[in-house]
Amino acid sequence: GALGGLALGLWRWQRAAMAASEEEEEEEVRFMAPPVSGLRELRRRRRELRSRMELLIMETQAEVCRALAEIDPGASFAVDTWERKEGGGGISCVLQDGEVFEKAGVNVSVVFGLLSEEAARQMRSRGKSLKAKDGKLPFCAMGVSSVIHPKNPHVPTVHFNYRYFEIEEADGTKQWWFGGGTDLTPTYLNEEDAVHFHKTLKEACDKHDLKLYPKYKKWCDDYFYIKHRGERRGIGGIFFDDMDSPSKEEVFQFVKSCAKAVVPCYIPIVKKHCHDSFTPEEKLWQQLRRGRYVEFNLVYDRGTKFGLLTPGSRIESILMSLPLTARWEYMHNPPESSKEAEILEVLRNPKDWVH
Amino acid sequence: GALGGLALGLWRWQRAAMAASEEEEEEEVRFMAPPVSGLRELRRRRRELRSRMELLIMETQAEVCRALAEIDPGASFAVDTWERKEGGGGISCVLQDGEVFEKAGVNVSVVFGLLSEEAARQMRSRGKSLKAKDGKLPFCAMGVSSVIHPKNPHVPTVHFNYRYFEIEEADGTKQWWFGGGTDLTPTYLNEEDAVHFHKTLKEACDKHDLKLYPKYKKWCDDYFYIKHRGERRGIGGIFFDDMDSPSKEEVFQFVKSCAKAVVPCYIPIVKKHCHDSFTPEEKLWQQLRRGRYVEFNLVYDRGTKFGLLTPGSRIESILMSLPLTARWEYMHNPPESSKEAEILEVLRNPKDWVH
Repeated sequence: GALGGLALGLWRWQRAAMAASEEEEEEEVRFMAPPVSGLRELRRRRRELRSRMELLIMETQAEVCRALAEIDPGASFAVDTWERKEGGGGISCVLQDGEVFEKAGVNVSVVFGLLSEEAARQMRSRGKSLKAKDGKLPFCAMGVSSVIHPKNPHVPTVHFNYRYFEIEEADGTKQWWFGGGTDLTPTYLNEEDAVHFHKTLKEACDKHDLKLYPKYKKWCDDYFYIKHRGERRGIGGIFFDDMDSPSKEEVFQFVKSCAKAVVPCYIPIVKKHCHDSFTPEEKLWQQLRRGRYVEFNLVYDRGTKFGLLTPGSRIESILMSLPLTARWEYMHNPPESSKEAEILEVLRNPKDWVH
Repeated sequence: GALGGLALGLWRWQRAAMAASEEEEEEEVRFMAPPVSGLRELRRRRRELRSRMELLIMETQAEVCRALAEIDPGASFAVDTWERKEGGGGISCVLQDGEVFEKAGVNVSVVFGLLSEEAARQMRSRGKSLKAKDGKLPFCAMGVSSVIHPKNPHVPTVHFNYRYFEIEEADGTKQWWFGGGTDLTPTYLNEEDAVHFHKTLKEACDKHDLKLYPKYKKWCDDYFYIKHRGERRGIGGIFFDDMDSPSKEEVFQFVKSCAKAVVPCYIPIVKKHCHDSFTPEEKLWQQLRRGRYVEFNLVYDRGTKFGLLTPGSRIESILMSLPLTARWEYMHNPPESSKEAEILEVLRNPKDWVH
């Protein structure tokens, strides 16, 4: 297949010496695997934004995996490092069939190479035109993405993704932009959790610009829309793409705040509910909602669709987002005023959780 | 929602008097519900191909439902008749959570109205250009479609669909074509069953033209291809579209032979294996294959995609094709020379089952 070099191992902390120049003390960092670009190279080019972003996504991956492992200590993490023939590679960390988590994947990828003008246009949601030399555009794309599906129907699913793109045009100018977001998909509505989740994200946004949270909250509700159902996938969060102002440094700082908010916005909710008791009927409703999750990801999600259609992409890492199990029943309609109808109501009509 | 008039009832034989003119004796037909166009109207226009096709799809629905009910007598069928605001309607018959069948849906739809030139082009796989008056084309589309997912992993899933389209151009000329197919998706390979299935379809084709089976067998292998997995959805059968020669009558007779072959190609396989014992590991492999079924239907299937994007289409009838339950495991690779690897091999490299 198209998997490239693959190393399947068990959960382990990667200790790597970062010392590359004499004036630096040897320091140890805890990543899930050696970074795609190599620690030495990242160290050497540490002032460049590309390197800082790669370190941020590696740190985020490790932070989230560490938090999951702490909650679900018996579960084993598969850590796969893979290379992309056309340039770059990635690190996929997957926990499956744990005590708390049914399936949790945290994926880092750093890929580069040449894009066709058409592909470059598709990558950018606004579809800006780009001037290529000989029809090909050098590009670099990197990001961390994750979906965490817990077992207990009272613990919501979370998804996050933070990414950076660079494309070099014929005249040498670089177009760059960031994208990302974090969103929550509960099986049942818990208002307190919804408020905690949105409030934590709002605080991360507000440090940079008060306009960001309202704008990206709405974008999230609009993006995760399952049109044929008339429902959102979950209760939202934030989502943004094509972010290229006010400056590269400021956008990076914003993305960093968002990435650092992942653990505090989600992990307390997991800890609070992972021992809640639940009925078989609640588990069944969770499975039906997982079916909707699959519908969104396979029919609408731009990242998934782009990945599936791109030659050389790593299918297992892309489809890591799918739940372990899902269910589809014909004409399932929960009774009025049930807990199931309550969550459907907010999926059909998104609410403001923080004012 | 967009469901239109909806009547949810239990399995019942619909007895309807077909007598509409004095010279005819009163006769009783056994359909699942009254036909969309009305028995009286069908009777009056009984020489027109549209009416004969509508009767054929109604008969096929009833034949298949009767065969399923006979095998799974304890299961109840939901029979929904629905109307489409824009014109026409349908009858959905769904059996869920039976003893033998996990989920089985047999759907008839007869819809008509006006199409945009763009939509009309998309309906036809070859994308012929059509000349519209004021940009709108009167059309009629009808068909029977079905997916049957059994519980036992030794009983394969079957899918079939037979359909007829008519589009009227600005100058009054009518474009018409038939499409359809029947294909099998086993969890484990049973060569005898594969041969029986393909042989029955080949016999139906051979009565009309010896070139049809080889051509439509290949088309089926090409169509049900899950590109990102490098696998076909199942072991094939026949598939065709845009069939408009040698004549309307001859194509109809061919489609009729195929529709009449559904019960004999599939039901004997169900009867043979529905009491086979199976292990939890075999059930698990079935669930993983169901996941692939979902991937094909949501990512590639033209009918599903067209349906999801068409305003006013009945989502529950379109997504009836999804299995009751499915599973996705990260990096699941069956061991070499296992029974799981055996079926994967023929999904990757389709075989000729009949010579």
